[in-house]
Amino acid sequence: MKAKLSEFGERRRWFQGVLAEAGLDGAFLSSPVTVRYLTGFTGSNSMLLMGASGAELFTDPRYTVQVEQEADAEKKTVAAGVLMNAVCASVKKRRMRRMGFEASHLTYEGYARLGEGLGAKVALKPLGRGLAERRAVKSAGEIAAIRRAVAINSEAYERALKQFRVGMLETELAAELDHQMRLLGAECAAFDTIVASGAHSALPHAHPRPVPVKANALLLIDMGAQASGYASDMTRMALPGKPSRRAAKLYRAVLEAQLAGIDATRPGASASSVDHAARRVLKSEGLEELFIHSTGHGLGLEIHEYPRIGKTEECELKPGMVITIEPGVYVEGWGGIRIEDTVLVTERGCEVLTPTPKELRVL
Amino acid sequence: MKAKLSEFGERRRWFQGVLAEAGLDGAFLSSPVTVRYLTGFTGSNSMLLMGASGAELFTDPRYTVQVEQEADAEKKTVAAGVLMNAVCASVKKRRMRRMGFEASHLTYEGYARLGEGLGAKVALKPLGRGLAERRAVKSAGEIAAIRRAVAINSEAYERALKQFRVGMLETELAAELDHQMRLLGAECAAFDTIVASGAHSALPHAHPRPVPVKANALLLIDMGAQASGYASDMTRMALPGKPSRRAAKLYRAVLEAQLAGIDATRPGASASSVDHAARRVLKSEGLEELFIHSTGHGLGLEIHEYPRIGKTEECELKPGMVITIEPGVYVEGWGGIRIEDTVLVTERGCEVLTPTPKELRVL
Repeated sequence: MKAKLSEFGERRRWFQGVLAEAGLDGAFLSSPVTVRYLTGFTGSNSMLLMGASGAELFTDPRYTVQVEQEADAEKKTVAAGVLMNAVCASVKKRRMRRMGFEASHLTYEGYARLGEGLGAKVALKPLGRGLAERRAVKSAGEIAAIRRAVAINSEAYERALKQFRVGMLETELAAELDHQMRLLGAECAAFDTIVASGAHSALPHAHPRPVPVKANALLLIDMGAQASGYASDMTRMALPGKPSRRAAKLYRAVLEAQLAGIDATRPGASASSVDHAARRVLKSEGLEELFIHSTGHGLGLEIHEYPRIGKTEECELKPGMVITIEPGVYVEGWGGIRIEDTVLVTERGCEVLTPTPKELRVL
Repeated sequence: MKAKLSEFGERRRWFQGVLAEAGLDGAFLSSPVTVRYLTGFTGSNSMLLMGASGAELFTDPRYTVQVEQEADAEKKTVAAGVLMNAVCASVKKRRMRRMGFEASHLTYEGYARLGEGLGAKVALKPLGRGLAERRAVKSAGEIAAIRRAVAINSEAYERALKQFRVGMLETELAAELDHQMRLLGAECAAFDTIVASGAHSALPHAHPRPVPVKANALLLIDMGAQASGYASDMTRMALPGKPSRRAAKLYRAVLEAQLAGIDATRPGASASSVDHAARRVLKSEGLEELFIHSTGHGLGLEIHEYPRIGKTEECELKPGMVITIEPGVYVEGWGGIRIEDTVLVTERGCEVLTPTPKELRVL
């Protein structure tokens, strides 16, 4: 009877198939999320040498104990300074000749050092986007982790808003959101939490400032939780006061664009068709010029993953993909409005994972 | 009368001298910390094209407002997808031929795309470590920012320990430390805060676990604050109970090693001599094998910067450098002890910036 492979072992076996298909003897995997995806190891310094006959995970002595606890591949611990040398020695010993590498992660310096260490007999080939494509389609376990991140995210939002009062600093509210996520079990915020009030909300990637949130100032909150390594992402608008006619009108347009994006999200649809659906609504309102970014992005072990939900991205959506849908409009000097959910592509359409209501929240 | 250059303008002028000396017409600067160091811009997506006659900062429309507020160089905003193309077009227009790039940051993919965009007439050369060396020596303004980060760090430690009780989860204490840093004005934790109790402290880079801290369990806390972009770094040991003889003995040895490292820190000394000073103490106690990492590292805009304070790093310490000194011993199955300060190299020796007392803290 054959031993059951772990989820990580199954992924490595799948990846060995990718290597064989590409005519490669093996690959160097250097990005921490790839190493985590294929072995379970979460340390910051490692390299996974994948070959047809197995995998070797190299790390340094700071992780000797942790790598034993986490990773199910063969492990080698070597001094941090000579990790690359040890990997190269193993390649030579195993007589591998054609090696893939992560061109979108490995630095030029790392590439050059690999080349020197391996010598002229070993060819280095950039890997394709097979890993990104596979990671885009989440397993049941991964979806469960994302659901947990989403739940923490939304509950922390409610708890932090209960603490809100006019005059609170943007930085205080951001700190409260992050603290609530941690108390609810998040490892960390999935990215730098955005709390932007008034005109500052016109910056899509605003940093919270130590300035008080004023009455009647639009408040944009963009936050995500990381749980078991997986991210959520949500943007909501709140308002301590009564919305102006302009705010109400723009809010309605963005909400309709966001709902149109969700409506277009189903297996077989292209990522660009979701972007177009949201963009079309804003265009019909004469707001297209104010929508200055893509409609969304995949997320998982990273907050931004393949596929981008953008104008030219032809990736076909598949059940199990998890993406954000987050159109927005930004008016310099006045403010910005964005609404964002984390959305799972299902067999028949999609499921909006984010449970937080989407009305403009009056505080 | 000539207009006074900003600190960023002075840095760019200095860097133009570096380029001239290396026989380069210009350079592509792609790492966010380099862009911040040379222009003040803190966005996540940008490229700085430096030439002999000036600088152009490229970013995407999400940052149109922010780049105007923050950066004092010439700015160009182009769609995220064509940023590289726009940079290449400018190089061609300006007839630059020999271009430096950040080989330790730019990915192989980015390098290949630059090469394609520029064509065969433009040569790409890895930049040396001039920028890292300059960044290692902090200006008065940078030292002030680090002092503020250190002060926040130590005060947050005191406030969080007041909340400590036996049975608190490691994750709760870590969340409290981070929350206090934020409330005291930190933008964020400078790195993932480590709270590790009992045997788990034998992992130098432990993640906090949702497990209660027990009475008489050694507690290792490694934390840093980021303020105005600059990091602090501190490790302290606490104990809810009475130290065992073994804990007391190991603690004394690590403290003596740490003090020896501080004692060796002065202008003209090599980084390796600081490492040796700390290592020698642990060797004399027969503990050298348990000290499995370097003695420290530079810090500033990044938590780990040049120089590494390690066995083979011959960098000469200079006034204005800020480094950590953090020897430790790690016993698998029992626990680890590390003591770490943020230290400024001065004209005559060094100043330990971290004010937190270094006794084993009994809670």
